[in-house]
Amino acid sequence: MVTPHSLRLVVIAPDLSASDAADEAGLALIERSRQLRIGLLENGYNIVAVLPVDTFLRERLAQLQPDMIIVDAESEARDALEHVVMATRDERRPIVLFTNDDDTRHVRDAVAAGVCAYIVAGLEPTRIRPILDVAMARFEHEQGLRRELADARSELNDRKVIDRAKGMLMQRQGLSEQAAYEKLRKAAMDKGLRLAEVAQRMLDVADLLG
Amino acid sequence: MVTPHSLRLVVIAPDLSASDAADEAGLALIERSRQLRIGLLENGYNIVAVLPVDTFLRERLAQLQPDMIIVDAESEARDALEHVVMATRDERRPIVLFTNDDDTRHVRDAVAAGVCAYIVAGLEPTRIRPILDVAMARFEHEQGLRRELADARSELNDRKVIDRAKGMLMQRQGLSEQAAYEKLRKAAMDKGLRLAEVAQRMLDVADLLG
Repeated sequence: MVTPHSLRLVVIAPDLSASDAADEAGLALIERSRQLRIGLLENGYNIVAVLPVDTFLRERLAQLQPDMIIVDAESEARDALEHVVMATRDERRPIVLFTNDDDTRHVRDAVAAGVCAYIVAGLEPTRIRPILDVAMARFEHEQGLRRELADARSELNDRKVIDRAKGMLMQRQGLSEQAAYEKLRKAAMDKGLRLAEVAQRMLDVADLLG
Repeated sequence: MVTPHSLRLVVIAPDLSASDAADEAGLALIERSRQLRIGLLENGYNIVAVLPVDTFLRERLAQLQPDMIIVDAESEARDALEHVVMATRDERRPIVLFTNDDDTRHVRDAVAAGVCAYIVAGLEPTRIRPILDVAMARFEHEQGLRRELADARSELNDRKVIDRAKGMLMQRQGLSEQAAYEKLRKAAMDKGLRLAEVAQRMLDVADLLG
């Protein structure tokens, strides 16, 4: 009995149709892909969709909001990854690549875009769960770093904008630093804006006001 | 023929001695560990040392400066990881865990500390290379984020310190903002220090000067 957990997966896999089953290689592909999905289900994951790589991918991912994306690419992993990376550019999600393609020359770009783990295809499916756990933890850890970076940059930017606005008021109106700061703060409170927003607006129109 | 590459690995593995070979389980452990090392060598990696987890680990890693640490922990992965994580706390290195231990409850902490990939032990050694490539790329990508974050925080901190020092000069000596800034800048140039360093020193001793 496997504990089910709430992770919602989308599997990206080529759309193998009956015609692919005509030869032995096609049949093997279909079977491997089927085994992967069975393995994920047996591990208690919730596969909310299996999608091909097409122009609707981004829209569908936005609708489905999966917790993780499994890219099942027996070959041509590079192509599949590029599409998934494009489709998740604005909304990052952990991407796990499941492939036999040993060509990792393209891996650096993919990693920068969110690929968290590389699983050798054919791995016994019941062994997948710890790998996905680590991949998920890595992704969340990195998202944390990314948020901290965004916060630090935003605070730095706020400070620069406020300093520029203060400097402009001091110079134009002969105010002390404290007086310039109070003036900005009052404007922010009156308008219900953040200090940095008022400062930015002032800088934006300063040229107009001459 | 495998292209050799310059990655210098340290393998952390239990120190299995002849006495462990007394029973079948011990023999299997020794053989698995041997196969892993052969696999790494066959993939062109340079194993610079195989170390047990002991109190000298940190010192040895500091001497060896490996590019990546492979933790070979058939069981008790948690213990081994904790030691490696402690030993690399000040000098982060990519850590790849090679284990059959499915218990990933401890994984979050390990990931925060640098574990990049989880490899199911017994995986065909020739398939390890793409996984290590991805792990390495992930580590470097995260180090990049970490550096950016450190830069942004340091710039923010510099700005705060300089602003405080400027404010103090303006208040104490009745200087304009520009004059206070010039004064700090001149002091920095005279002493061959960064502006923020001079500002910090001024703040540090301001109380002394009354």
